[in-house]
Amino acid sequence: MEIRLAQHSGFCFGVKRAIQIALEASDGQQDIFTLGPLIHSPQMVEELSRHGIRMAENPAELHNSTVIVRSHGISLSDKETLLKNGNVLIDATCPYVSKAQEHVRQLCSEGYPVVIIGDRDHPEVIAMLSYCGGETLVIGSPDEVPDKFWQKLGVLSQTTKNMALLQETVSRLLPHVKELRLFNTICTATSIRQEATTALAKISDLMIIIGGRNSSNTRMLAALCSGITKTLHVETADEISEEQISSQHRIGLTAGASTPDYLIVDVYNRINKLTGNRTTVTSVEDIPVNKEESC
Amino acid sequence: MEIRLAQHSGFCFGVKRAIQIALEASDGQQDIFTLGPLIHSPQMVEELSRHGIRMAENPAELHNSTVIVRSHGISLSDKETLLKNGNVLIDATCPYVSKAQEHVRQLCSEGYPVVIIGDRDHPEVIAMLSYCGGETLVIGSPDEVPDKFWQKLGVLSQTTKNMALLQETVSRLLPHVKELRLFNTICTATSIRQEATTALAKISDLMIIIGGRNSSNTRMLAALCSGITKTLHVETADEISEEQISSQHRIGLTAGASTPDYLIVDVYNRINKLTGNRTTVTSVEDIPVNKEESC
Repeated sequence: MEIRLAQHSGFCFGVKRAIQIALEASDGQQDIFTLGPLIHSPQMVEELSRHGIRMAENPAELHNSTVIVRSHGISLSDKETLLKNGNVLIDATCPYVSKAQEHVRQLCSEGYPVVIIGDRDHPEVIAMLSYCGGETLVIGSPDEVPDKFWQKLGVLSQTTKNMALLQETVSRLLPHVKELRLFNTICTATSIRQEATTALAKISDLMIIIGGRNSSNTRMLAALCSGITKTLHVETADEISEEQISSQHRIGLTAGASTPDYLIVDVYNRINKLTGNRTTVTSVEDIPVNKEESC
Repeated sequence: MEIRLAQHSGFCFGVKRAIQIALEASDGQQDIFTLGPLIHSPQMVEELSRHGIRMAENPAELHNSTVIVRSHGISLSDKETLLKNGNVLIDATCPYVSKAQEHVRQLCSEGYPVVIIGDRDHPEVIAMLSYCGGETLVIGSPDEVPDKFWQKLGVLSQTTKNMALLQETVSRLLPHVKELRLFNTICTATSIRQEATTALAKISDLMIIIGGRNSSNTRMLAALCSGITKTLHVETADEISEEQISSQHRIGLTAGASTPDYLIVDVYNRINKLTGNRTTVTSVEDIPVNKEESC
Protein backbone atom coordinates (compact mmCIF):
# COMPACT_ATOMS: atom_id res chain seq x y z
CA MET A 1 0.00 0.00 0.00
CA GLU A 2 1.32 3.41 -0.98
CA ILE A 3 0.49 6.50 1.05
CA ARG A 4 0.96 9.96 -0.41
CA LEU A 5 0.57 13.26 1.41
CA ALA A 6 -0.69 16.16 -0.70
CA GLN A 7 1.51 19.20 -0.99
CA HIS A 8 0.22 22.25 0.88
CA SER A 9 -1.77 20.28 3.44
CA GLY A 10 -2.43 21.43 6.98
CA PHE A 11 -2.07 24.83 8.64
CA CYS A 12 -2.22 27.89 6.42
CA PHE A 13 -0.57 31.20 7.17
CA GLY A 14 -3.70 32.70 8.77
CA VAL A 15 -4.25 29.75 11.09
CA LYS A 16 -0.60 29.58 12.18
CA ARG A 17 -0.71 33.31 12.85
CA ALA A 18 -3.94 33.07 14.89
CA ILE A 19 -2.53 30.26 17.07
CA GLN A 20 0.68 32.16 17.61
CA ILE A 21 -1.22 35.32 18.60
CA ALA A 22 -3.44 33.30 20.97
CA LEU A 23 -0.55 31.47 22.63
CA GLU A 24 1.44 34.68 23.08
CA ALA A 25 -1.62 36.40 24.57
CA SER A 26 -2.29 33.51 26.92
CA ASP A 27 1.18 33.61 28.42
CA GLY A 28 0.58 34.39 32.10
CA GLN A 29 -2.92 35.72 31.45
CA GLN A 30 -6.13 34.98 33.31
CA ASP A 31 -9.59 35.35 31.79
CA ILE A 32 -8.60 34.85 28.16
CA PHE A 33 -11.28 33.86 25.71
CA THR A 34 -12.15 33.42 22.11
CA LEU A 35 -15.66 34.13 20.86
CA GLY A 36 -16.44 30.90 19.02
CA PRO A 37 -13.56 28.59 18.06
CA LEU A 38 -10.30 30.36 17.16
CA ILE A 39 -9.96 27.98 14.21
CA HIS A 40 -12.20 25.18 12.93
CA SER A 41 -10.37 22.27 14.55
CA PRO A 42 -12.07 20.89 17.69
CA GLN A 43 -8.83 19.10 18.60
CA MET A 44 -6.77 22.27 18.35
CA VAL A 45 -9.38 24.23 20.31
CA GLU A 46 -9.07 21.59 23.07
CA GLU A 47 -5.30 21.95 22.95
CA LEU A 48 -5.66 25.72 23.34
CA SER A 49 -7.89 25.22 26.38
CA ARG A 50 -4.92 23.51 28.05
CA HIS A 51 -3.15 26.86 27.66
CA GLY A 52 -6.01 28.58 29.47
CA ILE A 53 -7.74 29.87 26.34
CA ARG A 54 -11.43 29.24 26.82
CA MET A 55 -14.23 29.62 24.33
CA ALA A 56 -17.39 31.69 24.79
CA GLU A 57 -20.43 31.36 22.52
CA ASN A 58 -22.07 34.70 23.22
CA PRO A 59 -20.37 38.11 23.49
CA ALA A 60 -22.74 39.11 26.33
CA GLU A 61 -21.08 36.45 28.52
CA LEU A 62 -17.75 38.27 28.50
CA HIS A 63 -16.85 41.18 30.78
CA ASN A 64 -13.46 42.76 31.48
CA SER A 65 -11.61 39.90 29.84
CA THR A 66 -9.03 39.52 27.11
CA VAL A 67 -10.84 38.30 23.98
CA ILE A 68 -8.97 36.98 20.98
CA VAL A 69 -10.87 37.66 17.76
CA ARG A 70 -11.05 34.34 15.91
CA SER A 71 -9.31 33.79 12.55
CA HIS A 72 -12.66 34.09 10.72
CA GLY A 73 -13.35 37.53 12.19
CA ILE A 74 -16.37 38.63 14.21
CA SER A 75 -19.28 40.91 13.38
CA LEU A 76 -19.17 44.61 14.15
CA SER A 77 -22.09 44.24 16.58
CA ASP A 78 -20.27 41.48 18.52
CA LYS A 79 -17.21 43.70 18.60
CA GLU A 80 -19.27 46.59 19.91
CA THR A 81 -20.83 44.42 22.65
CA LEU A 82 -17.43 43.12 23.72
CA LEU A 83 -15.92 46.59 23.93
CA LYS A 84 -18.96 47.99 25.74
CA ASN A 85 -18.48 45.28 28.40
CA GLY A 86 -14.92 46.35 29.09
CA ASN A 87 -13.16 43.55 27.23
CA VAL A 88 -9.78 44.03 25.57
CA LEU A 89 -9.68 42.65 22.03
CA ILE A 90 -6.67 41.02 20.41
CA ASP A 91 -7.25 40.64 16.70
CA ALA A 92 -6.30 37.24 15.27
CA THR A 93 -8.51 37.68 12.20
CA CYS A 94 -6.70 36.27 9.16
CA PRO A 95 -5.34 39.30 7.27
CA TYR A 96 -6.97 37.99 4.09
CA VAL A 97 -10.33 37.95 5.85
CA SER A 98 -9.73 41.48 7.18
CA LYS A 99 -9.00 42.58 3.61
CA ALA A 100 -12.29 41.04 2.43
CA GLN A 101 -14.15 42.87 5.22
CA GLU A 102 -12.58 46.13 4.03
CA HIS A 103 -13.73 45.43 0.47
CA VAL A 104 -17.29 44.91 1.74
CA ARG A 105 -17.13 48.22 3.60
CA GLN A 106 -15.75 50.02 0.54
CA LEU A 107 -18.30 48.57 -1.90
CA CYS A 108 -21.13 49.42 0.45
CA SER A 109 -19.91 52.98 1.01
CA GLU A 110 -19.82 53.43 -2.78
CA GLY A 111 -23.44 52.34 -3.09
CA TYR A 112 -23.00 48.78 -4.34
CA PRO A 113 -25.37 46.10 -3.07
CA VAL A 114 -23.00 43.32 -1.98
CA VAL A 115 -23.15 39.64 -2.93
CA ILE A 116 -20.98 37.24 -0.95
CA ILE A 117 -20.46 33.84 -2.52
CA GLY A 118 -20.27 31.51 0.45
CA ASP A 119 -22.14 29.78 3.27
CA ARG A 120 -24.59 32.11 4.97
CA ASP A 121 -24.09 30.41 8.35
CA HIS A 122 -20.30 30.54 8.27
CA PRO A 123 -18.81 32.93 10.84
CA GLU A 124 -16.52 34.51 8.25
CA VAL A 125 -19.53 35.37 6.06
CA ILE A 126 -21.60 36.59 9.02
CA ALA A 127 -18.73 38.89 10.03
CA MET A 128 -18.25 40.14 6.45
CA LEU A 129 -21.95 40.95 6.10
CA SER A 130 -21.80 43.19 9.15
CA TYR A 131 -19.46 45.56 7.27
CA CYS A 132 -22.28 46.54 4.90
CA GLY A 133 -25.20 48.66 6.05
CA GLY A 134 -26.98 48.35 2.69
CA GLU A 135 -28.39 45.50 0.58
CA THR A 136 -26.53 42.21 0.96
CA LEU A 137 -27.08 38.72 -0.39
CA VAL A 138 -25.28 35.45 0.29
CA ILE A 139 -25.21 33.01 -2.62
CA GLY A 140 -24.21 29.45 -1.77
CA SER A 141 -24.51 27.96 -5.25
CA PRO A 142 -25.07 29.32 -8.78
CA ASP A 143 -28.70 28.11 -8.70
CA GLU A 144 -29.40 30.62 -5.93
CA VAL A 145 -28.88 33.67 -8.20
CA PRO A 146 -32.24 35.46 -7.94
CA ASP A 147 -34.29 36.67 -10.88
CA LYS A 148 -33.76 40.38 -10.36
CA PHE A 149 -31.71 43.16 -11.95
CA TRP A 150 -29.09 45.40 -10.35
CA GLN A 151 -27.74 48.62 -11.87
CA LYS A 152 -24.57 47.98 -9.89
CA LEU A 153 -23.43 45.05 -7.81
CA GLY A 154 -20.39 44.26 -5.69
CA VAL A 155 -19.25 40.62 -5.54
CA LEU A 156 -16.85 38.84 -3.16
CA SER A 157 -16.16 35.28 -2.13
CA GLN A 158 -15.73 33.62 1.22
CA THR A 159 -11.94 33.22 1.32
CA THR A 160 -12.06 29.42 1.40
CA LYS A 161 -14.38 28.91 -1.59
CA ASN A 162 -13.05 27.84 -4.95
CA MET A 163 -12.53 29.52 -8.31
CA ALA A 164 -15.00 27.26 -10.17
CA LEU A 165 -17.82 28.35 -7.86
CA LEU A 166 -16.85 32.00 -8.30
CA GLN A 167 -16.70 31.63 -12.09
CA GLU A 168 -20.02 29.84 -12.40
CA THR A 169 -21.82 32.22 -10.03
CA VAL A 170 -20.45 35.31 -11.78
CA SER A 171 -21.54 33.84 -15.14
CA ARG A 172 -25.06 33.48 -13.81
CA LEU A 173 -25.01 36.98 -12.31
CA LEU A 174 -23.82 38.75 -15.47
CA PRO A 175 -27.19 38.86 -17.26
CA HIS A 176 -28.64 40.45 -14.11
CA VAL A 177 -26.30 43.44 -13.74
CA LYS A 178 -25.26 46.56 -15.57
CA GLU A 179 -22.08 47.13 -13.55
CA LEU A 180 -20.36 44.37 -11.65
CA ARG A 181 -17.41 45.09 -9.39
CA LEU A 182 -15.70 42.01 -8.06
CA PHE A 183 -12.87 41.50 -5.61
CA ASN A 184 -11.37 38.04 -5.84
CA THR A 185 -11.05 37.32 -2.12
CA ILE A 186 -10.32 33.60 -2.48
CA CYS A 187 -7.15 32.96 -0.47
CA THR A 188 -4.24 31.80 -2.63
CA ALA A 189 -3.40 29.14 -0.05
CA THR A 190 -6.93 27.76 -0.43
CA SER A 191 -6.79 27.53 -4.21
CA ILE A 192 -3.29 25.99 -4.21
CA ARG A 193 -4.34 23.46 -1.57
CA GLN A 194 -7.37 22.53 -3.67
CA GLU A 195 -5.25 22.16 -6.78
CA ALA A 196 -2.73 19.90 -5.03
CA THR A 197 -5.51 17.82 -3.48
CA THR A 198 -7.28 17.35 -6.79
CA ALA A 199 -4.01 16.25 -8.42
CA LEU A 200 -3.44 13.67 -5.69
CA ALA A 201 -7.05 12.41 -5.81
CA LYS A 202 -6.59 11.58 -9.48
CA ILE A 203 -3.86 9.04 -8.66
CA SER A 204 -5.42 7.63 -5.46
CA ASP A 205 -7.87 4.79 -4.79
CA LEU A 206 -8.91 6.46 -1.55
CA MET A 207 -8.49 10.03 -0.30
CA ILE A 208 -8.55 10.69 3.43
CA ILE A 209 -9.30 14.34 4.25
CA ILE A 210 -8.34 15.30 7.78
CA GLY A 211 -9.94 18.29 9.47
CA GLY A 212 -12.83 19.76 11.41
CA ARG A 213 -16.33 18.95 10.20
CA ASN A 214 -17.08 22.62 10.94
CA SER A 215 -14.24 23.68 8.64
CA SER A 216 -15.48 25.06 5.32
CA ASN A 217 -12.18 24.63 3.49
CA THR A 218 -11.86 21.02 4.71
CA ARG A 219 -15.37 20.19 3.55
CA MET A 220 -14.56 21.77 0.19
CA LEU A 221 -11.52 19.46 -0.15
CA ALA A 222 -13.74 16.46 0.62
CA ALA A 223 -16.33 17.62 -1.91
CA LEU A 224 -13.71 18.07 -4.62
CA CYS A 225 -12.19 14.61 -3.98
CA SER A 226 -15.51 12.80 -3.82
CA GLY A 227 -16.09 13.82 -7.44
CA ILE A 228 -12.85 12.06 -8.40
CA THR A 229 -12.31 9.02 -6.16
CA LYS A 230 -13.49 7.27 -2.98
CA THR A 231 -13.22 9.82 -0.16
CA LEU A 232 -13.24 9.75 3.64
CA HIS A 233 -13.48 12.91 5.77
CA VAL A 234 -12.21 12.37 9.34
CA GLU A 235 -11.37 14.63 12.24
CA THR A 236 -9.14 12.11 14.00
CA ALA A 237 -7.29 8.88 13.21
CA ASP A 238 -9.54 6.67 15.34
CA GLU A 239 -12.40 7.19 12.88
CA ILE A 240 -10.56 5.03 10.35
CA SER A 241 -11.40 1.31 10.31
CA GLU A 242 -9.45 -1.60 8.86
CA GLU A 243 -12.33 -2.38 6.53
CA GLN A 244 -12.17 1.08 4.96
CA ILE A 245 -8.53 0.82 3.94
CA SER A 246 -7.63 -2.85 3.65
CA SER A 247 -8.38 -3.23 -0.06
CA GLN A 248 -6.85 0.09 -1.14
CA HIS A 249 -3.52 0.25 -2.94
CA ARG A 250 -2.94 3.98 -3.17
CA ILE A 251 -4.13 6.19 -0.33
CA GLY A 252 -3.85 9.98 -0.55
CA LEU A 253 -3.87 12.17 2.55
CA THR A 254 -4.60 15.84 2.84
CA ALA A 255 -5.70 18.20 5.58
CA GLY A 256 -7.62 21.46 5.89
CA ALA A 257 -6.03 24.80 6.71
CA SER A 258 -6.91 24.47 10.39
CA THR A 259 -5.65 20.90 10.88
CA PRO A 260 -2.53 20.57 13.06
CA ASP A 261 0.31 18.39 11.78
CA TYR A 262 0.02 15.92 14.66
CA LEU A 263 -3.45 14.89 13.45
CA ILE A 264 -1.99 14.08 10.03
CA VAL A 265 0.79 12.04 11.65
CA ASP A 266 -1.81 10.25 13.78
CA VAL A 267 -3.68 9.21 10.63
CA TYR A 268 -0.51 7.89 9.01
CA ASN A 269 0.35 5.89 12.15
CA ARG A 270 -3.17 4.52 12.32
CA ILE A 271 -3.09 3.28 8.70
CA ASN A 272 0.34 1.79 9.25
CA LYS A 273 -0.85 -0.03 12.35
CA LEU A 274 -4.06 -1.32 10.73
CA THR A 275 -2.11 -2.72 7.78
CA GLY A 276 0.61 -4.33 9.87
CA ASN A 277 3.31 -1.86 8.80
CA ARG A 278 2.84 -2.71 5.14
CA THR A 279 2.67 0.90 3.94
CA THR A 280 5.14 2.81 1.79
CA VAL A 281 5.26 6.58 1.98
CA THR A 282 5.75 7.91 -1.52
CA SER A 283 7.08 11.33 -2.41
CA VAL A 284 4.58 13.80 -3.76
CA GLU A 285 7.16 15.78 -5.68
CA ASP A 286 5.89 14.35 -8.93
CA ILE A 287 2.38 15.69 -8.38
CA PRO A 288 2.00 18.56 -10.83
CA VAL A 289 1.35 21.74 -8.89
CA ASN A 290 2.68 24.82 -10.62
CA LYS A 291 2.40 27.62 -8.14
CA GLU A 292 3.98 28.46 -4.81
CA GLU A 293 1.76 29.09 -1.83
CA SER A 294 1.80 32.81 -1.20
CA CYS A 295 -0.20 33.17 1.98
CA MET B 1 -42.83 25.72 -47.84
CA GLU B 2 -43.31 27.81 -44.71
CA ILE B 3 -41.47 31.10 -44.21
CA ARG B 4 -41.15 32.65 -40.80
CA LEU B 5 -39.68 36.04 -39.99
CA ALA B 6 -37.91 36.32 -36.63
CA GLN B 7 -39.20 38.83 -34.14
CA HIS B 8 -36.95 41.87 -33.65
CA SER B 9 -35.32 41.66 -37.07
CA GLY B 10 -34.01 44.66 -38.99
CA PHE B 11 -33.25 48.20 -37.89
CA CYS B 12 -32.50 48.80 -34.24
CA PHE B 13 -33.08 52.06 -32.40
CA GLY B 14 -29.50 53.30 -32.92
CA VAL B 15 -29.55 52.65 -36.66
CA LYS B 16 -32.97 54.26 -37.17
CA ARG B 17 -31.78 57.28 -35.20
CA ALA B 18 -28.54 57.58 -37.20
CA ILE B 19 -30.42 57.46 -40.53
CA GLN B 20 -32.92 60.02 -39.31
CA ILE B 21 -30.13 62.36 -38.15
CA ALA B 22 -28.33 61.92 -41.47
CA LEU B 23 -31.41 62.55 -43.58
CA GLU B 24 -32.38 65.62 -41.57
CA ALA B 25 -28.83 66.98 -41.84
CA SER B 26 -28.74 66.37 -45.59
CA ASP B 27 -31.87 68.39 -46.25
CA GLY B 28 -30.72 71.20 -48.51
CA GLN B 29 -27.07 70.75 -47.51
CA GLN B 30 -24.00 70.61 -49.72
CA ASP B 31 -20.74 68.90 -48.74
CA ILE B 32 -22.20 66.44 -46.30
CA PHE B 33 -20.16 63.37 -45.44
CA THR B 34 -19.83 60.42 -43.17
CA LEU B 35 -16.40 59.11 -42.16
CA GLY B 36 -16.72 55.44 -43.06
CA PRO B 37 -20.21 53.97 -43.57
CA LEU B 38 -22.95 55.50 -41.40
CA ILE B 39 -24.22 51.96 -40.76
CA HIS B 40 -22.99 48.57 -41.93
CA SER B 41 -25.37 48.14 -44.85
CA PRO B 42 -23.79 48.81 -48.26
CA GLN B 43 -27.26 49.04 -49.78
CA MET B 44 -28.41 51.65 -47.27
CA VAL B 45 -25.17 53.61 -47.69
CA GLU B 46 -25.90 53.69 -51.43
CA GLU B 47 -29.42 54.88 -50.70
CA LEU B 48 -28.01 57.67 -48.50
CA SER B 49 -25.69 58.74 -51.32
CA ARG B 50 -28.81 59.46 -53.36
CA HIS B 51 -29.64 62.01 -50.65
CA GLY B 52 -26.24 63.64 -51.15
CA ILE B 53 -24.57 61.97 -48.16
CA ARG B 54 -21.16 60.87 -49.34
CA MET B 55 -18.63 58.69 -47.57
CA ALA B 56 -15.01 59.58 -46.88
CA GLU B 57 -12.43 57.03 -45.77
CA ASN B 58 -9.88 59.38 -44.22
CA PRO B 59 -10.55 62.38 -41.97
CA ALA B 60 -7.72 64.32 -43.64
CA GLU B 61 -9.78 64.38 -46.88
CA LEU B 62 -12.48 66.53 -45.28
CA HIS B 63 -12.30 70.32 -44.92
CA ASN B 64 -15.04 72.80 -44.02
CA SER B 65 -17.78 70.21 -44.50
CA THR B 66 -20.62 68.83 -42.45
CA VAL B 67 -19.56 65.42 -41.16
CA ILE B 68 -22.03 62.99 -39.62
CA VAL B 69 -20.36 60.80 -37.01
CA ARG B 70 -21.27 57.20 -37.89
CA SER B 71 -23.45 55.05 -35.59
CA HIS B 72 -20.35 53.12 -34.41
CA GLY B 73 -18.61 56.31 -33.27
CA ILE B 74 -15.21 57.60 -34.36
CA SER B 75 -11.89 57.83 -32.53
CA LEU B 76 -10.91 60.95 -30.63
CA SER B 77 -7.96 61.52 -32.98
CA ASP B 78 -10.24 61.38 -36.05
CA LYS B 79 -12.58 63.80 -34.30
CA GLU B 80 -9.69 66.14 -33.57
CA THR B 81 -8.50 66.04 -37.19
CA LEU B 82 -11.99 66.77 -38.48
CA LEU B 83 -12.46 69.74 -36.15
CA LYS B 84 -8.98 71.11 -36.92
CA ASN B 85 -9.89 71.12 -40.61
CA GLY B 86 -12.94 73.30 -40.01
CA ASN B 87 -15.58 70.60 -40.31
CA VAL B 88 -18.86 70.74 -38.40
CA LEU B 89 -19.69 67.43 -36.69
CA ILE B 90 -23.19 66.03 -36.27
CA ASP B 91 -23.13 63.14 -33.85
CA ALA B 92 -25.11 60.07 -34.95
CA THR B 93 -23.20 57.73 -32.63
CA CYS B 94 -25.62 55.21 -31.15
CA PRO B 95 -26.31 56.43 -27.58
CA TYR B 96 -25.44 52.95 -26.29
CA VAL B 97 -22.04 53.17 -27.97
CA SER B 98 -21.52 56.68 -26.54
CA LYS B 99 -22.29 55.25 -23.11
CA ALA B 100 -19.70 52.50 -23.60
CA GLN B 101 -17.13 55.12 -24.64
CA GLU B 102 -17.89 57.03 -21.43
CA HIS B 103 -17.35 53.86 -19.39
CA VAL B 104 -13.95 53.37 -21.06
CA ARG B 105 -13.01 56.94 -20.22
CA GLN B 106 -14.18 56.53 -16.61
CA LEU B 107 -12.37 53.20 -16.03
CA CYS B 108 -9.19 54.59 -17.52
CA SER B 109 -9.34 57.76 -15.42
CA GLU B 110 -9.69 55.57 -12.31
CA GLY B 111 -6.56 53.62 -13.21
CA TYR B 112 -8.08 50.44 -14.61
CA PRO B 113 -6.40 48.78 -17.59
CA VAL B 114 -9.32 48.23 -20.00
CA VAL B 115 -10.27 45.01 -21.77
CA ILE B 116 -12.80 45.27 -24.59
CA ILE B 117 -14.38 41.99 -25.65
CA GLY B 118 -14.88 42.41 -29.39
CA ASP B 119 -13.27 42.59 -32.81
CA ARG B 120 -10.10 44.67 -32.78
CA ASP B 121 -10.69 45.89 -36.36
CA HIS B 122 -14.30 46.95 -35.79
CA PRO B 123 -14.78 50.74 -35.93
CA GLU B 124 -16.81 50.72 -32.71
CA VAL B 125 -13.93 49.04 -30.85
CA ILE B 126 -11.31 51.30 -32.45
CA ALA B 127 -13.31 54.33 -31.35
CA MET B 128 -13.82 52.95 -27.83
CA LEU B 129 -10.09 52.27 -27.42
CA SER B 130 -9.31 55.90 -28.16
CA TYR B 131 -11.10 56.92 -24.94
CA CYS B 132 -8.38 55.25 -22.83
CA GLY B 133 -4.90 56.70 -22.60
CA GLY B 134 -3.65 53.76 -20.52
CA GLU B 135 -3.30 49.99 -21.00
CA THR B 136 -5.93 48.47 -23.28
CA LEU B 137 -6.49 45.01 -24.68
CA VAL B 138 -9.03 43.67 -27.17
CA ILE B 139 -10.08 40.06 -26.65
CA GLY B 140 -11.92 38.42 -29.54
CA SER B 141 -12.39 34.99 -28.00
CA PRO B 142 -11.86 33.43 -24.54
CA ASP B 143 -8.72 31.66 -25.81
CA GLU B 144 -7.07 35.04 -26.26
CA VAL B 145 -6.98 35.79 -22.50
CA PRO B 146 -3.25 36.30 -21.85
CA ASP B 147 -1.27 34.60 -19.10
CA LYS B 148 -0.71 37.66 -16.93
CA PHE B 149 -2.09 39.09 -13.68
CA TRP B 150 -3.79 42.41 -13.09
CA GLN B 151 -4.40 44.01 -9.68
CA LYS B 152 -7.40 45.74 -11.23
CA LEU B 153 -9.05 45.41 -14.60
CA GLY B 154 -11.95 47.10 -16.36
CA VAL B 155 -14.01 45.01 -18.78
CA LEU B 156 -16.54 46.00 -21.44
CA SER B 157 -18.05 44.42 -24.51
CA GLN B 158 -18.56 45.62 -28.04
CA THR B 159 -22.28 46.45 -27.98
CA THR B 160 -23.19 43.82 -30.58
CA LYS B 161 -21.42 40.84 -28.98
CA ASN B 162 -23.35 38.21 -27.07
CA MET B 163 -23.75 37.28 -23.43
CA ALA B 164 -22.22 33.80 -23.83
CA LEU B 165 -18.97 35.33 -25.11
CA LEU B 166 -18.95 37.83 -22.24
CA GLN B 167 -19.59 35.08 -19.67
CA GLU B 168 -16.93 32.73 -20.99
CA THR B 169 -14.31 35.47 -21.34
CA VAL B 170 -14.98 36.82 -17.85
CA SER B 171 -14.68 33.27 -16.47
CA ARG B 172 -11.27 32.93 -18.07
CA LEU B 173 -10.21 36.38 -16.84
CA LEU B 174 -11.21 35.83 -13.20
CA PRO B 175 -8.14 33.79 -12.15
CA HIS B 176 -5.98 36.61 -13.58
CA VAL B 177 -7.38 39.55 -11.61
CA LYS B 178 -7.72 40.81 -8.06
CA GLU B 179 -10.39 43.40 -8.82
CA LEU B 180 -12.58 43.23 -11.90
CA ARG B 181 -14.96 46.04 -12.76
CA LEU B 182 -17.29 45.25 -15.60
CA PHE B 183 -19.87 47.30 -17.45
CA ASN B 184 -22.27 45.16 -19.43
CA THR B 185 -22.38 47.22 -22.62
CA ILE B 186 -24.14 44.61 -24.75
CA CYS B 187 -27.12 46.37 -26.30
CA THR B 188 -30.44 44.93 -25.17
CA ALA B 189 -31.71 45.03 -28.76
CA THR B 190 -28.77 42.86 -29.79
CA SER B 191 -29.35 40.23 -27.14
CA ILE B 192 -33.11 40.10 -27.79
CA ARG B 193 -32.54 39.81 -31.53
CA GLN B 194 -30.10 36.94 -30.93
CA GLU B 195 -32.55 35.19 -28.64
CA ALA B 196 -35.40 35.47 -31.16
CA THR B 197 -33.15 34.30 -34.00
CA THR B 198 -31.92 31.28 -32.04
CA ALA B 199 -35.52 30.34 -31.22
CA LEU B 200 -36.49 30.51 -34.89
CA ALA B 201 -33.39 28.59 -36.04
CA LYS B 202 -34.44 25.68 -33.84
CA ILE B 203 -37.64 25.20 -35.85
CA SER B 204 -36.21 25.93 -39.31
CA ASP B 205 -34.54 23.74 -41.95
CA LEU B 206 -32.76 26.79 -43.35
CA MET B 207 -32.08 30.22 -41.85
CA ILE B 208 -31.45 33.15 -44.17
CA ILE B 209 -29.66 36.03 -42.44
CA ILE B 210 -29.94 39.31 -44.30
CA GLY B 211 -27.43 42.07 -43.71
CA GLY B 212 -24.05 43.61 -44.50
CA ARG B 213 -21.05 41.28 -44.52
CA ASN B 214 -19.26 44.13 -42.71
CA SER B 215 -21.94 44.10 -39.99
CA SER B 216 -20.71 42.52 -36.76
CA ASN B 217 -24.18 41.88 -35.33
CA THR B 218 -25.36 40.28 -38.60
CA ARG B 219 -22.32 37.97 -38.69
CA MET B 220 -23.03 37.07 -35.07
CA LEU B 221 -26.61 36.05 -36.02
CA ALA B 222 -25.22 33.87 -38.81
CA ALA B 223 -22.68 32.28 -36.46
CA LEU B 224 -25.36 31.51 -33.88
CA CYS B 225 -27.68 29.95 -36.47
CA SER B 226 -24.97 27.90 -38.17
CA GLY B 227 -24.52 26.03 -34.90
CA ILE B 228 -28.20 25.05 -35.00
CA THR B 229 -29.31 24.60 -38.62
CA LYS B 230 -28.31 25.16 -42.24
CA THR B 231 -27.58 28.89 -42.61
CA LEU B 232 -27.19 31.37 -45.46
CA HIS B 233 -25.88 34.92 -44.97
CA VAL B 234 -26.86 37.26 -47.81
CA GLU B 235 -26.77 40.99 -48.36
CA THR B 236 -29.40 41.02 -51.09
CA ALA B 237 -32.11 38.74 -52.46
CA ASP B 238 -30.33 38.02 -55.75
CA GLU B 239 -27.69 35.98 -53.89
CA ILE B 240 -30.32 33.27 -53.27
CA SER B 241 -30.50 30.45 -55.80
CA GLU B 242 -33.31 27.98 -56.46
CA GLU B 243 -31.00 25.11 -55.56
CA GLN B 244 -30.39 26.51 -52.08
CA ILE B 245 -34.04 26.62 -51.12
CA SER B 246 -35.93 24.12 -53.25
CA SER B 247 -35.69 21.17 -50.85
CA GLN B 248 -36.40 23.19 -47.67
CA HIS B 249 -39.75 22.97 -45.90
CA ARG B 250 -39.32 25.58 -43.18
CA ILE B 251 -37.29 28.71 -43.92
CA GLY B 252 -36.55 31.27 -41.19
CA LEU B 253 -35.62 34.86 -42.05
CA THR B 254 -33.90 37.40 -39.88
CA ALA B 255 -31.91 40.57 -40.46
CA GLY B 256 -29.16 42.51 -38.73
CA ALA B 257 -29.67 45.81 -36.94
CA SER B 258 -28.54 47.80 -39.98
CA THR B 259 -30.68 45.99 -42.57
CA PRO B 260 -33.53 48.07 -44.05
CA ASP B 261 -36.96 46.45 -44.28
CA TYR B 262 -37.05 46.57 -48.07
CA LEU B 263 -34.14 44.11 -48.24
CA ILE B 264 -36.13 41.68 -46.10
CA VAL B 265 -39.16 42.09 -48.34
CA ASP B 266 -36.93 41.54 -51.39
CA VAL B 267 -35.76 38.22 -49.95
CA TYR B 268 -39.30 37.08 -49.28
CA ASN B 269 -40.35 38.01 -52.84
CA ARG B 270 -37.31 36.20 -54.25
CA ILE B 271 -38.11 32.97 -52.41
CA ASN B 272 -41.72 33.22 -53.44
CA LYS B 273 -40.75 33.70 -57.08
CA LEU B 274 -38.20 30.84 -57.07
CA THR B 275 -40.75 28.45 -55.61
CA GLY B 276 -43.58 29.45 -57.93
CA ASN B 277 -45.60 31.16 -55.18
CA ARG B 278 -45.75 28.00 -53.10
CA THR B 279 -44.74 29.72 -49.85
CA THR B 280 -46.83 30.25 -46.74
CA VAL B 281 -45.90 33.04 -44.35
CA THR B 282 -46.35 31.75 -40.85
CA SER B 283 -46.78 33.90 -37.78
CA VAL B 284 -43.86 34.01 -35.38
CA GLU B 285 -46.04 34.85 -32.40
CA ASP B 286 -45.58 31.34 -31.07
CA ILE B 287 -41.81 31.67 -30.93
CA PRO B 288 -40.95 31.97 -27.25
CA VAL B 289 -39.24 35.30 -26.68
CA ASN B 290 -39.83 36.66 -23.24
CA LYS B 291 -38.58 40.21 -23.22
CA GLU B 292 -39.51 43.44 -24.97
CA GLU B 293 -36.89 45.22 -27.00
CA SER B 294 -35.82 48.25 -25.01
CA CYS B 295 -33.50 50.08 -27.34
